[in-house]
Amino acid sequence: MLRATVTVTLKNEVSDPQGHAVRDTLDNLHPGFAQRVRVGKILHIDLKESDREKARAELDKICREVLSNPVIEEYAFEIEEVTS
Amino acid sequence: MLRATVTVTLKNEVSDPQGHAVRDTLDNLHPGFAQRVRVGKILHIDLKESDREKARAELDKICREVLSNPVIEEYAFEIEEVTS
Repeated sequence: MLRATVTVTLKNEVSDPQGHAVRDTLDNLHPGFAQRVRVGKILHIDLKESDREKARAELDKICREVLSNPVIEEYAFEIEEVTS
Repeated sequence: MLRATVTVTLKNEVSDPQGHAVRDTLDNLHPGFAQRVRVGKILHIDLKESDREKARAELDKICREVLSNPVIEEYAFEIEEVTS
């Protein structure tokens, strides 16, 4: 079976309040550890499609149109064969 | 500079309502594409620490105690050298 791993992250120039909150927490609990934190999403999608090239083309469209907001986010994915 | 990439995902046996919602949406828009969707978090953390082994040890503790809920989530991380 093919499994896609998609990451959706805020573009570098976009402010990330969730990342700031995590950094502030880390600053309190572990001073001097983190300089900058950015938070994004990771999706693991088990695919019905078994043709890797077809899956890649459709997933690219899905990432652009459904899973990310192209105005503020960017995405990346990889597709791998997994057992079970 | 060292940058850590941390992924925090629900354990396999834990129900994932957000993943279900994404799968249902994909089923509507792209029938026959996704079998199962799991949603997690990805964090990119720019580190102040420059010693990779020290960073690894502290980050492991941080993942366990701050960034994940070990009851329902699991984490993984890697640390790489980045420029800028």
